[in-house]
Amino acid sequence: MTATTATTGDVAARVAEIGRQARRASRALAASDTASRNRALEATASAIEARVESIQRANRLDLEGGRQKSLSPALMDRLELTPSRIAAMAEGLRQIAALPDPVGEITDLRRRPSGIRVGRMRVPIGVIAIIYESRPNVTADAAALCLKSGNAVILRGGSEAINSNLSIAACIAEGLAAASLPAEAVQVIDTTDRAAVGALVTMDEFVDVIVPRGGKGLIERISRDATVPVIKHLDGICHVYIDDDADVDKAVRVAVNAKTRRYGICGAMETLLIAEAMAPAVLPELVRRYTDAGVELRGCERTRELSPGMKAATDEDWVTEYLAPILSIRVVDGLDAAIEHIATYGSGHTDAIVTENVSRADRFLAEVDSSSVMVNASTQFADGFEYGLGAEIGISTNKLHVRGPVGLEGLTTQKYVVFGDGTIRP
Amino acid sequence: MTATTATTGDVAARVAEIGRQARRASRALAASDTASRNRALEATASAIEARVESIQRANRLDLEGGRQKSLSPALMDRLELTPSRIAAMAEGLRQIAALPDPVGEITDLRRRPSGIRVGRMRVPIGVIAIIYESRPNVTADAAALCLKSGNAVILRGGSEAINSNLSIAACIAEGLAAASLPAEAVQVIDTTDRAAVGALVTMDEFVDVIVPRGGKGLIERISRDATVPVIKHLDGICHVYIDDDADVDKAVRVAVNAKTRRYGICGAMETLLIAEAMAPAVLPELVRRYTDAGVELRGCERTRELSPGMKAATDEDWVTEYLAPILSIRVVDGLDAAIEHIATYGSGHTDAIVTENVSRADRFLAEVDSSSVMVNASTQFADGFEYGLGAEIGISTNKLHVRGPVGLEGLTTQKYVVFGDGTIRP
Repeated sequence: MTATTATTGDVAARVAEIGRQARRASRALAASDTASRNRALEATASAIEARVESIQRANRLDLEGGRQKSLSPALMDRLELTPSRIAAMAEGLRQIAALPDPVGEITDLRRRPSGIRVGRMRVPIGVIAIIYESRPNVTADAAALCLKSGNAVILRGGSEAINSNLSIAACIAEGLAAASLPAEAVQVIDTTDRAAVGALVTMDEFVDVIVPRGGKGLIERISRDATVPVIKHLDGICHVYIDDDADVDKAVRVAVNAKTRRYGICGAMETLLIAEAMAPAVLPELVRRYTDAGVELRGCERTRELSPGMKAATDEDWVTEYLAPILSIRVVDGLDAAIEHIATYGSGHTDAIVTENVSRADRFLAEVDSSSVMVNASTQFADGFEYGLGAEIGISTNKLHVRGPVGLEGLTTQKYVVFGDGTIRP
Repeated sequence: MTATTATTGDVAARVAEIGRQARRASRALAASDTASRNRALEATASAIEARVESIQRANRLDLEGGRQKSLSPALMDRLELTPSRIAAMAEGLRQIAALPDPVGEITDLRRRPSGIRVGRMRVPIGVIAIIYESRPNVTADAAALCLKSGNAVILRGGSEAINSNLSIAACIAEGLAAASLPAEAVQVIDTTDRAAVGALVTMDEFVDVIVPRGGKGLIERISRDATVPVIKHLDGICHVYIDDDADVDKAVRVAVNAKTRRYGICGAMETLLIAEAMAPAVLPELVRRYTDAGVELRGCERTRELSPGMKAATDEDWVTEYLAPILSIRVVDGLDAAIEHIATYGSGHTDAIVTENVSRADRFLAEVDSSSVMVNASTQFADGFEYGLGAEIGISTNKLHVRGPVGLEGLTTQKYVVFGDGTIRP
C-alpha cells in the first residue's frame, strides 16, 4: 500500500470499494468467535514488536515530511513513534484482547403471555469509520477496539502520518491473517486526498457510524458534512459548583484537582461556581492555591468584591474551553442559579457539585443535562479507564446512543431476539 | 390556537420560538416527579372524555375538508374520530400513566479503585419532535409517551387533521395545567405551512430527536432533510427461512401466520425462503394454504419446479414490501444461502428461522443483521406490546441508539453519575 494521487472521481470509487469490502468483512466478523478476534489482536501485538525498526523507518519519513511542512513542535511530538511508544501500542493491544467480549450477551430475556420469550442480544454495529489526526498510535488502538467488538473498521488518518499508519496497518494485516479473519476487517485509506473523507462520511450504505478523533475543527467539519451518524465530542466546558452545604476541605480539594491536575484534557474544569453563602469560606484559600499553581483567574463582579484585584470575567469566558491554566469564577445565589448557569453556558460534558446535602445532590444529578454528573468528585475523573470501561475510543457529547466515555459497549448495539416453538400471533 | 397563514420567515421564527420554549419546558420536566407526570396524563384522559363532542365537532371540520380534497377512503377512515376511538385514546393515556417510569433508574453502580462509585442514570432525551400524518389519535398517544418519559414534545400533524389535533391539544393543555406542569411541555405546531417541518428538523439547538410516523415518503423526506437525529422506520421486508431441520408442522404454522394474519403491518413476511431439502415436504401444503387464503404466490425457478404454474418472481420481488396478499418464495441451498439472501435483499427489520437445530438457530441469530431475529416464531410478533414494552412509539430500523420496537426506554438516554467524598484524581 502506498499513498496515491488520484482524481476525486477515482477517490470516491476507491472509497466505495473499501466500504463494500468492509461491509462484507463485517458479516464475517459477526460470525467470528471471541477467540479468533483475540488471537488477531495478540498476533498484531507480536507483529508490532517484531517490526519496531520498519515502523520507525516509516515514521522517520513522516517526521521528515513534518519538518518540511514546519509542523508545530506539539504536532511533531504527537507524530513521533519512539520505541517506548511502539511498545505501549503492542501492550495496549494485549490489554484490549484481555477485556471481556461485549458481543453475544443476551439480557432481559422474558417469557411473554403469548408463549414467546423475548430478549436483547448485544451485537456489533457493523462498519465503523475512524477519522483522526496526527497520532499514528490511534491506528492500532482504534482498530483493536473495533475488532474486539466485532466491527469492521475503515481508518482514515492524517496525511502527515500516512507512512506510519500504513506500517502499523501491515502489522494488523499480519494479525488478521494469523487468525484467519478477512484482511478487509481493518482497512486504512491509502490516499491522502481530502475527497476521501467526504466520500466516507456520506456512504450510508457501507458505513454505520463515524468516530472522529481530533481537534474541534475536524469534528465540526465532519459533523456538518456527514449523513452517516457521528459519535462526536465537542467542547468540554466543565463546571464545579460549590454548594452552600459543601464541606470546605472537600470543596477546596475537588476544585483544585479539577483545574490543576491537567489543564489540557476535556474533563478539566473551566468555570468554578460558588454559592454566595460559601464564597467567603472557600474563595481566599482557592485563590491562594490557584495562584501558587500559576492559574490565571477571571472573576464575576461578586467574586472580585471578595478577591479585589482579580481580572474581570466577560460573557465570553463562560463559553470558553481554555484547556490552559486559566479559570473563570462566578459567585451564584445557590443551586438554582448554578443549574441555570450550566444550562446556559455549559457544553453537556461533565459537571460536579460539592455538597453534603442529599436533596441538592439529587437535584443536581437529575437536572444538569451532561454526559457525566458528579457529586463530591473531581471532573478530571471523566475517563473511560477511570470509569472501568477498560478502554476508551473517545468521549461522546451526543445524547443518543452513547453519552460520556465510549468503551467497547458503545461500539455495539442491541437487537431483539425472539424464541418460540412454532408460536404464532393470534 | 388556530391554523395561521404566514410567510416562510415568520414560520421559521415561530418554530424557533416553539423550540426555545420546549427546551425550557424540558428542564422543568427533568426536575418533575413521576406522580406529576402521571397526574397530567390522567387529567388529559378525563378532559378527552369530557370533551368528546367538541373533539368530534373539530374532527367533522377535518372530515369535511378531506371530502373536499377527495382524500382516499383509507385516509378518510384514519382521519375519523368515532366515540369509540376517542374513548380508546383516553384509555391509552391511562395505560401509559400506569406503566413504570423509566427515568431515574441507576444501573451498574460500581466502586472503582480510585474510590469513586460510577453508574449510569436513565434520563429523558430532552425535546422530541413527532411528525405524523392523518391519524389524530397520534397527538394524544405520542404526547403521552414523551411526557411519561420526561421529555418535552413538539407535535406536527398533517394539515388534513389540524382541527382534530388542536382539539386534542387543548385537552392535553388542561392535563398539564392540572399537574402544574408547563404548558410548553406539549406543543402542537399550529400552522399547516410545510416550511415548519423544514425548520423543525434542522433545529439542532432545540430539538434532540425526530420521530416521524407515517408512510415511507414522509420518512425518507425527513431523513434526507434532517440534521437532528431521526429514529426512523424504513421498509419491513421480513423473511421466514424454513431450515433443513425444521419441524414441518411448526414451519407451516409460522409461515402461514407470518403472511396471512395481517398483510398491511411492517412485521408481515414478504419473502419465504425454504431449504432445498425441506421444500418437497412443506411447499405443497403451504401453497394450498396460501392459495386458500387468497395470497398471490411468486416463486423462483426451483420453487416453480415443485409447484408448476406458479408465477415467476423477479429480482424486483425480493426487494418489495408488498403489504398485501402477495408472497415471493425462494428455494435456497441451506442456511448460508438464506443468510446471504437476507443480507442482500432484506431491510434489517425482522427475520425468522424455523429449525430444530440449535447451532443453526444460533448462527441465524448472530449473523442476520436485523432489528428482530426470531427462532420458530412468527415475524408478526414484531411489536412493542407483544415484546412487553407496554407501549410503542414506532419500530426503529436504525442501528444506533434503539433498534426494533421503541417503547419508553427508547425515549430516554443514560448519563454517567459519579459519587465521591471529596475524591480527587491522582
